[in-house]
Parts: sequence; structure tokens; C-alpha cells
Amino acid sequence: MKKNFYSDNVSGASPEILQAIVDSNADDTAPYGADQYTQRLEGRMAEFFETEAETFPVGTGTVANGLCASILCTPYGSIYCAEISHLHSSECGGTEFWSGGSARSVPLPTVDGKISVATLVEMIEAGALRTADPPGRALSITQGTEAGTVYTVREVRELAAAAHAKGLLVHMDGARFANAVARLGCTPAELTWKAGVDVLSFGATKNGALCAEAVVFFNRGLAETFRYRRRRAGHHYSKMRLISAQWLAFLENDLWLRNARHGNAMAARVRQGLADLPGIRFAHPTEINFVLTALPKRVWDGLVADGYSFSRRGAPRDGMVRIACACDTPVEAVDALIEAAHRHAGLVPAGAAVGSR
Amino acid sequence: MKKNFYSDNVSGASPEILQAIVDSNADDTAPYGADQYTQRLEGRMAEFFETEAETFPVGTGTVANGLCASILCTPYGSIYCAEISHLHSSECGGTEFWSGGSARSVPLPTVDGKISVATLVEMIEAGALRTADPPGRALSITQGTEAGTVYTVREVRELAAAAHAKGLLVHMDGARFANAVARLGCTPAELTWKAGVDVLSFGATKNGALCAEAVVFFNRGLAETFRYRRRRAGHHYSKMRLISAQWLAFLENDLWLRNARHGNAMAARVRQGLADLPGIRFAHPTEINFVLTALPKRVWDGLVADGYSFSRRGAPRDGMVRIACACDTPVEAVDALIEAAHRHAGLVPAGAAVGSR
Amino acid sequence: MKKNFYSDNVSGASPEILQAIVDSNADDTAPYGADQYTQRLEGRMAEFFETEAETFPVGTGTVANGLCASILCTPYGSIYCAEISHLHSSECGGTEFWSGGSARSVPLPTVDGKISVATLVEMIEAGALRTADPPGRALSITQGTEAGTVYTVREVRELAAAAHAKGLLVHMDGARFANAVARLGCTPAELTWKAGVDVLSFGATKNGALCAEAVVFFNRGLAETFRYRRRRAGHHYSKMRLISAQWLAFLENDLWLRNARHGNAMAARVRQGLADLPGIRFAHPTEINFVLTALPKRVWDGLVADGYSFSRRGAPRDGMVRIACACDTPVEAVDALIEAAHRHAGLVPAGAAVGSR
Amino acid sequence: MKKNFYSDNVSGASPEILQAIVDSNADDTAPYGADQYTQRLEGRMAEFFETEAETFPVGTGTVANGLCASILCTPYGSIYCAEISHLHSSECGGTEFWSGGSARSVPLPTVDGKISVATLVEMIEAGALRTADPPGRALSITQGTEAGTVYTVREVRELAAAAHAKGLLVHMDGARFANAVARLGCTPAELTWKAGVDVLSFGATKNGALCAEAVVFFNRGLAETFRYRRRRAGHHYSKMRLISAQWLAFLENDLWLRNARHGNAMAARVRQGLADLPGIRFAHPTEINFVLTALPKRVWDGLVADGYSFSRRGAPRDGMVRIACACDTPVEAVDALIEAAHRHAGLVPAGAAVGSR
Repeated sequence: MKKNFYSDNVSGASPEILQAIVDSNADDTAPYGADQYTQRLEGRMAEFFETEAETFPVGTGTVANGLCASILCTPYGSIYCAEISHLHSSECGGTEFWSGGSARSVPLPTVDGKISVATLVEMIEAGALRTADPPGRALSITQGTEAGTVYTVREVRELAAAAHAKGLLVHMDGARFANAVARLGCTPAELTWKAGVDVLSFGATKNGALCAEAVVFFNRGLAETFRYRRRRAGHHYSKMRLISAQWLAFLENDLWLRNARHGNAMAARVRQGLADLPGIRFAHPTEINFVLTALPKRVWDGLVADGYSFSRRGAPRDGMVRIACACDTPVEAVDALIEAAHRHAGLVPAGAAVGSR
Repeated sequence: MKKNFYSDNVSGASPEILQAIVDSNADDTAPYGADQYTQRLEGRMAEFFETEAETFPVGTGTVANGLCASILCTPYGSIYCAEISHLHSSECGGTEFWSGGSARSVPLPTVDGKISVATLVEMIEAGALRTADPPGRALSITQGTEAGTVYTVREVRELAAAAHAKGLLVHMDGARFANAVARLGCTPAELTWKAGVDVLSFGATKNGALCAEAVVFFNRGLAETFRYRRRRAGHHYSKMRLISAQWLAFLENDLWLRNARHGNAMAARVRQGLADLPGIRFAHPTEINFVLTALPKRVWDGLVADGYSFSRRGAPRDGMVRIACACDTPVEAVDALIEAAHRHAGLVPAGAAVGSR
Repeated sequence: MKKNFYSDNVSGASPEILQAIVDSNADDTAPYGADQYTQRLEGRMAEFFETEAETFPVGTGTVANGLCASILCTPYGSIYCAEISHLHSSECGGTEFWSGGSARSVPLPTVDGKISVATLVEMIEAGALRTADPPGRALSITQGTEAGTVYTVREVRELAAAAHAKGLLVHMDGARFANAVARLGCTPAELTWKAGVDVLSFGATKNGALCAEAVVFFNRGLAETFRYRRRRAGHHYSKMRLISAQWLAFLENDLWLRNARHGNAMAARVRQGLADLPGIRFAHPTEINFVLTALPKRVWDGLVADGYSFSRRGAPRDGMVRIACACDTPVEAVDALIEAAHRHAGLVPAGAAVGSR
Repeated sequence: MKKNFYSDNVSGASPEILQAIVDSNADDTAPYGADQYTQRLEGRMAEFFETEAETFPVGTGTVANGLCASILCTPYGSIYCAEISHLHSSECGGTEFWSGGSARSVPLPTVDGKISVATLVEMIEAGALRTADPPGRALSITQGTEAGTVYTVREVRELAAAAHAKGLLVHMDGARFANAVARLGCTPAELTWKAGVDVLSFGATKNGALCAEAVVFFNRGLAETFRYRRRRAGHHYSKMRLISAQWLAFLENDLWLRNARHGNAMAARVRQGLADLPGIRFAHPTEINFVLTALPKRVWDGLVADGYSFSRRGAPRDGMVRIACACDTPVEAVDALIEAAHRHAGLVPAGAAVGSR
């Protein structure tokens, strides 16, 4: 029984995606993205987003974000983002690195992981007064957020409008984009270009692929230099079909959506199942596929002793952990976790109740 | 029948490697290289090279070379390499980029793709006089070379000794390292650290993997910053097992060697089979898995009309093409190519002769 | 009568320094710092600081800080500094730029422009938990601060000890170093290497030179790459004597100290003279050569109408201005300013009172 | 008597320029280039070049070239230049550095220090085939060259036309621009924008200033980001009047031209005076203010023993030295040098003959 809730990256690929890798292996193809899989992906992505777009498969979300930042901030500039965003806090100074030292990520405070229009405008205006700061060039929002929440379509639209009004371009870090779409029940188009997003880092790896990310430019003029930058970055894979085949399977038959819905549902089930534990605290609403919670100490100790694993988040004194569900997390594994937590909390009947759902 | 001799990258993965990807998909693992496959790889690589080494899987040879150059040239400096080396001519200014503008690749002329000790020493000494040049920090040699040749163990040893005597570190770009070992009949250890190589970009992708490269530090003190640099580069894959599992299969049961031997044998067969074509020219000895040749025009035209594909090399006026064989190139495909070439050259019996070999 | 209190940079050179430029012009000298002025400066600086040090003249404080940050943070890392520090907020992302994208300045909150040990330790410890952040490498403190205050010798010592205990090196931005020494009545040595400072950006331009800054390494091992970095930065002046001759005059006969004392005294006189204006606010103690104050609106309007100029600081809504005195600000000009301010405040007799001091 | 022919940088400032520094010191001015000297310079430069241009004073030619390269090659690219150009060989990898690793200087072979149209076109076309090279963005030509020669107006025009036809911008490194104009007898306009030059690094330091270089954009659209880049580079001097006042004096009353003519004439006199020494060789025509020559060994030894100094050029085995004259080199010093050389060559009467000229 699965006890590893450390990350949505602990899972392997969905069967459909694994099969696509196997199938794409059969014949010779042109290398470096001239293969039929990569060629088809462009059209497939256009259908998915209901618009022409420039699509570039890459290997990780980190490089997707970094290359986007370097383009958006050319020839130099600042990219505003959430303090807790992956782009600012988990990429080893990626904005600065990919831009050759010409750009800077500027962290903004958030509420439930989300930047507000008021905060954004205030920071842009204050930044504009500091003429020796790299000038504001872009806003990056994470959808769903590192706090486990989502921006509504309206929130994205208003943020994008505020950014554009100040001359900034809009980037969306969509490492969990599918989870956000699943949560909101909107279309991918509504959540991106229709809301004003210029470019998207679109992730499949956390949602059922092995290694498949892509940068999708809706503002196609921004894409001009991407191919060269990607090659220079070492993400111009010679056997690109490996990545593109995963993407095609991910987009096929709504696999992306089914996977995301499942991950979201499992996280909701975790939250609901733990909610009655005495002393438990939740950091934010749980809107996508993971729960941020401060478990009572005896529960945490018991679960760790049982072999469960979670990742810690934030400052140690907060005792916050992330319980991450994935596209393949079994419902039984979630229920077993809930039961174990109740047992460690000394609430035996609760476990029984959960088991009967 | 295979007609695509454009690159050794047109092939998919060897069956053993594909199976390893499938097998590694079954269970949850720790992400970001804390998985059991990646953990095992370090030990496996030590056995392979008969020494302790620091091994880091990455996604492409370009990033392997770039990160190596950035480390070798810290805080600033020059890396000497062959004019035709991938590092200098095919990575979009990678040395300059990965070093944040602090390093420079300095191209050296070659004979049959190889740098001589005399050339190296002369260039280092001349460079040392130019105090406003980034100081010499490293030598990078490609094994096997972009010219289809190999440095002998002795040549590597002498180059490394000359470099070390001048205070330079030694990098080997081993995108086709297995092909070189197969050609030379030496051990991997003899061709690397025993000969003075400090760090190796070791490639599996061109020789049967889908996406599996690694940087192997024999001079382990150089490895200290690699993990961070790799993460910043977006090559710290969350599902690293994808790459590590390929590596384990590649090293298992001498798959790497069998694959390389086959590719080399097929290239030798191509060369021998074409050698009697009137007017054909070969650029260099054929010592690994591809042939550089200027085909007579009517042969070239005929083969293209038949659907064959090769890549052009060098200046257009030279009419040089690369006929690349891979680990899975069927002997029948090679013979059919030879026969077709003879047919287009107007040498009908030759084709028959080849067929009867 | 001087009405320009915009900056300490509005003044020309002190007569002694101007004369030194004229005198040094007479004969041919070796270029690029091999001249006798630059050669003597090293020894002169050692006397000044009572220790061997590596001294490098440069043209601006911005390049002094940037090159220091690039060295301190090699091969990558973070430099902690005050939010309002010149290094973080007035150098166009200099830390990021000079390091080729490998380093980052991390702003810390301050009280009266000064970083506290508690804040520093807390930030270093929090940073150490974020393994994907550039690791902490250095602390930069500004002496005197951008708030017009000074760190005491003890405060410098405690900050440096805390930084060193965490493995960080210590940089001091001494654009107004002489003003701080004058204020504290200590020796230059006590305020720098004796207190744990590894490297100093030492400025003369704001205190009577035309264009003379220097980087002084007390931790001499850090200086190894400076010469090359300075040349690459275009601060290796061919006629370096221009800068070095200014430095020699600046250090001669305590010109630096006399100049700094005068600037400090004039700022104290401004503050004292304005203190009784109804509604006036001062942002911080006035410990060096400028006053940060929010003038009553009618006073501000009146002074501007009179032709006075000051620079605005901080957010517009705070209405804060900097009244900067320099080494050559006449006492009469200060008194005239005070009188005018009182007049605009409707306090006629006050002006008279000031006039009679 | 002057015996220092090491460089044109061994001289101090011309009296007019020194006086301008003294004069500009008198009053308070606005800092950071808002002073009256810098404000006037823009208009003065427009008159000088008979066109509107964007002018930015900086401190050294190295930073002028580096910032130009970074702008011309944005967002990434190659700048073609002479192998012996200062930009390629004397700026510590400046193109790579200032561009944050995105650009590369590509050295071209020269004849008498000059790039030919044929070479340029060949290299651009070859480069265009190498799609993984930073794409060609600019040509940089040095006027006068490091070989002591000048491009004719027609040569500049043809090179610029060839570059523009290939989509490249044209930079001129005019560290000795005045010497070239003096030699050619043309106008500054004819040698720059009228011939197709987009941007000029204009130097005064080698020709009578202490520290005064400027970047002049004729293609004014390229100037947009310069101010920020200069500030980031630490060349936005707080007391910018120091540099601007030198420029105004340099351009006043044809001081630039008189200085350049004198330097050129002295070099011509050196060459003519040494021409009859048995065994002497000259590397190139002497068209500006220095002579490149291989002196007979006994002459060299004798002059060094006399206390003369020259700089060595090129490989040691060539024995080539540069005899540099400056704007203030006395004719008597030249004649004494010639006489001494003849004496050391055993040609006593020659010295006498020279003396009587």
C-alpha cells in the first residue's frame, strides 16, 4: 500500500504514457525535434488551447521558467512573482542565471499563495520610482499555486490586465495547470490566453508523465529566440520524440484531465478525512492535489513510524507538511492514511467510519 | 529497410533499455535522484571505471559539456578544444553561456580531428603571453572525434600530461566514448583517469539510450558544485529514475560495448563497400561508427532519389556527407546502401558482389 | 551662496586634490597603474590602515561593490545587505550582473539603516533551509549608512563575528567611510579589519575627490582575481595616475578627516537649526553629513522657490528629502538655509537668532 | 629628454584639457551627468559629426567596446572583428562578459591590420551555415588599426555596406579615431555615419585627455538601453563633469586634430629616421602615431641600455616592438632616439644628418 505522499513526483508514468514511449521507439525518426511526434504536437496543442501557439517541449519546469524569464526580461528587467513561487525560491536563482545576470525575480507577498492586484500594482509603482532597479518587465503567476490553491479565471484576467496596463508581460507557471483547470471547470483557453496570459510553462511530469514539460507561447512574437535558447540550455533533445510522445498521450482522450481530477479528489479526501483530528491546522484551502497541514505531534510521529513520508514546508517551527496526492494515488491508500492518523490521534472509531465510505 | 543514415540519433532505444524504463515505472520512488536507480548508478559507474568517481546523470551532452566547462574555467578562463568539437561549434556558445560570460572556448586546428601535443603546447604558450585573454584552464578532447577517429590511449596520456604540466585540467567529451573503447580494445579506466582525464562527459544516447548522459568526475574535488549547477540548469529531473534506469541497463552485460562494436562494424562495412566507387573521397580514417565521404555526384543524387538521408558536413563546396551507423543498423541495410551506391555509379556487378558477401 | 544640497557629489574637488591632479600631469609615467603614484598608494594605504592590504583604485563605488560581490559570492551565492543599501537598490542589479547571474543580493530590513545581528542570523538560518537558493556567502554593511547613521565599532565587530560564524565573508561599503570614522573618533583600522571586515569599498569621491574610489582587501587571499576582473570591467585606467594622485592627496595631512568632519558638522548644524520648525520630522539620527527630513509643505515650497535643491528619498507619500552637506559646504550657506526655512515657516525671529550664532 | 615610447598613454593631459578640469571644478553642479558640461557635450558632438547623435561619456575604451558589443549582439550573437583588435584580444573576453555569456567575438585574419570585404563576406557566410553558432550581428573595425594603418573612407564604406547587406550592424573602435581622420584628411562625418558606421567608440585618452572616452550612436535607436547599461557598469560617474569637460576642451579649436597630426608626424619622422638602419624591418605601413618595427639586436640592446622603453608586440620570436608617439612627443626626443639608434648601429654620421634636418 502506498505510503509515499512526499511529492506528486514519486509516481511513475501513467500506463498510456508509458505505452506511448514504447510505441514511439519502434522506428527511426529524424532527430532534434524533426520527428513526427514533435511535429504533431504543435497542432495538437493548438487544438487543446483553441488557438495557434508556439510550443516547445523541454525536460523540466525549471528550465521552462528560466528560459521564459530570460525572454520576458530581455534585455534586462524584473519579473514579479510570489514569494513562495518555484521560480523565485526553488530554481537556484534561475532568473538571474538564465538572463546572464540581467534580470531579477522580485518576490511579492501573497494570501493563500496568490498575488492580489493591489499588491502587484503597488509593487510595480514603487519599483518604477527606483530607477536603478531592473525595470519591471513581467508578472509570473503559478497556477495552481504552491499553497494548493488556484486563481479563478477572473483573478487571472484582472492580474493580467493590471500587468499589461503597466507594460508587463504575463507568464503562467503551470506545473500543475491541469489540476487548476480540473478544479475550475473552465477550458484551458479560458485560463490562459483568453485571460491575458502571454506564455505558459505547461507541466505534465507531476500529472502522469515521466519527463514532459513544454513552453507554450500564445504571444507568438515572444517565441522567436526560444529555439536557440533551448538548444544552448541543453534541452534540445536529440531523441525529442521521447518527450513529445508523452505529451501526445497526455493530451489524448483527456488523460490530463482524468489524472488531474483524480489527484485533486484524493487531496480533498485527505483533507476531509483529517479535518476532525483534534489540534490539526490547515494552512490554506485545498483546491488541487495536495494538502498543507500541521499535524498534531503524536499523529506525525505515528505516521512516520508507520513508514509514511511527506515533505516539510516552510520554517521548521511551523511544523507544516505537504501531503501530496498524484494521478495514481489509490483511494485505499488515502483511506489507510486517514485511518492511521486517527489511530495515532487515539480516535479509533473515526478510522472505522472512514473505512466504510 | 532502413535508409536513414542521418545520425546515430535517429534510432530508438535498445530493447534492454526500453525494458528498463518500463520496469522502473512500477513503483513509487523518491524524486530528484534519491531513487534506488540513481543511488545504484554511482556504485555501478565505479565498477565500470574501476575507481571511485562522482557521477551525475543529465539529459544531454550539451549540458554535460557546458557545466563541465563552467566548472573547469572557474572563476574565468579558457578551455582549449578542437575547432570542430561539439563543445566549440555546436552548443550555441555554451562555454560562454554556462560560465556567465567568464569563460571562452579556444579552437585548435586538428589533423584527422585530433589535437596534437605540439599544437596544444604552442597555443597554451602563446595564450599565456596575452595577459588580457581569459587564462588557460582546461583542455577538452573528444573521444571518438567528430572526424570519426579516436585518440589512442597513449595520445590521451600525452595530451593530458602536457595539459597538466601547464596547469590545465583535462575534460573528455565522450559522446561516443563507448565507440572509442570498442575500437581501441582498452578498458574504460585506461582511456580516462589512468590516462589523466579529470572529468568525462559520458554519452549513452547515441549508442542505444533514449536520453541518458552523465558527467563522471575522476578528479572528485571538481564535483563539489555540480549538483547545484545541474539543478540551476534544469537538469535535476524530478523523475531521475528515467535516466538512471537507462544507464544501469546500458552498463549491464556489456550492452554499451556490444552496441558500440556493432555501430563501428557497420561503419567499417560501409567504408569498405564504397571504397571502390570511382571518384569517391574519404575525409579521414573511419575508426568509429560513421564515415565522412564525398560521394560522386551521380551516386549522391541517386541515393537521395532512393530516399536515403545523410547529413552534410563542413563547407558546401566540399560535398562531404556523414553516413552514420547506429547500434541497431541492420547489416542488410548497409549492404543495400552499398549496392544502391554501386548501381548509381553504373557498377552493376559490384552490387551483386557486395550482396554475396 | 550655495543652494545646492542635492548630494555630496555636487561639489568639485578639494583644492589639494585638484592640485595633485595638476602636479601629476607633468611627466611621462608608465600606464595602467605601473606609475609611481599608484605604486606609492599601496604603501600609503597600508600606513593608513596599519596593516598590509591589497589596494585597487577604481572609478566608481558601483563597480567597487559589484566586483567585490562577484568575488565574495564565487562561484555562486548570496550577499546579505540592507534593503536600502546602494549595493541592492542603486546599482541596477549589480550583484547579479557582475557575477554573470550566479549571485544575488538579499535585502534585510534595518532599523535606522542598520542591520542587527538578530536579523542577520535569522535570515542566514532561514536561507540555509532553502537549498535551492544561492547559498549565503557574504554580508555587506554600509558605513555610514544610507540613513545617515553609523554602525559603532562594536556593532561592526558583532555583525562580522556573526557572519564569520556562519561562514560568510564581510564587505563594508565605505562610500562615506571617512564620515563614519570622523563621527566615531576611532581609527580606520579599528573600524575595518580589526572589527572583522574582509574587504572595503573605500570612497573618496563624495568627500573631496573628483573620481577616486578603491577596493581594499584586508583578507588578501580574496584579491587574487581582482586585477583581471577590474580590467575586464573597464576600470583599469590607462592613465591611472589620475585616480591614484587624488588618493594620495586625500590621505595626506588628514585631508580625508578634515573634509569628513566638516561635512558632518554642517549636517549637524542643519539639523539643529531646523529642529524647532513646527511639524518637521526627522527620519533617523543625523550622524554623518546629511539629514533626512520631512519638511513642512510651506517650507519645502518656499525653499524650492528660492532655488534650493535637495533629493527626494523613499516613497513620495513620505515627503522625505535629503539635505546633503559636503566637505566644502560653507557655514554661511547652512545658516542661510536655516534662516530661509524659518522665514518660510513664518518664524522670522528664528532666522535672526540663527544669524547671531 | 623623453625616452618613454612605450605607449601614447604615458603622457599626461594636454594643457588645454588640464585647464578645463581645473575650470570645471569651481562651482557646484548637478551630479551624474546632469551638469552643464555633459549637457553641452551632446550638442558639441552633433556639430563635430554634422548630425544628431546620442553621446555617452565613459571612462575607458574597454567599457565603450564592451557595452557596444552587448547592445549590438542582443539578445545573443557574434561580433566579427580583427584578430588583433583590442576588442577581441585585450579586453579579457569583454564581449562574452558584457553580454552575460550571450555573445562572442569572432576573430578575422587581416592584412596590415585591416579586414577585407572578401574575408568578411566569406566568414559571415560560413558562420551562417553553422546554426549552432551565435548568429552574426555586427562588424567591429578599428580605426586607426592596431597595426598602425587606417581604413580609407572607401574601405569603411565598402565594409559597412557588406555588413549591412548581411544584416550586421557596424561598430568602429575609434581609440585613435582622431589620428585616422588626421591621416585621411576627411571629415569625422565622412569616416563614420556617412560611410555606414552605426556606433563609434570614440577615444580622447590616447590623444591628450586624462580619462575621456565616449560612445557615439549615429544609429540612435541602438542607444535606448545604453544609459542603464553604463550605470550598471559603474561608468555613470557622479562627477561626470570631469570627463565631459575634457571632451569639450578636446573638441575645441581643433585640439583633437592638432594633437593627432603631431603624433602622426612624429611617428612618420621615427620611421623615416630609422629606415636606413641595416637589417631593420617594419611590419606595416606607418599611417598613424606609432611604428611597428623589428630593430636590429644591437640597436635594441643599446636603446634599452640608454633607458628607452617600447612595448613588445606579437610573438617573442618576431622581436617586434611598438614605438609610440603621442600628442606631446617633442621633435627633439624623436631626433635623439634616431640618433641613438644610429649610434648603436655603428652609423655615426647618420645621427648628425638627422640632427640637421
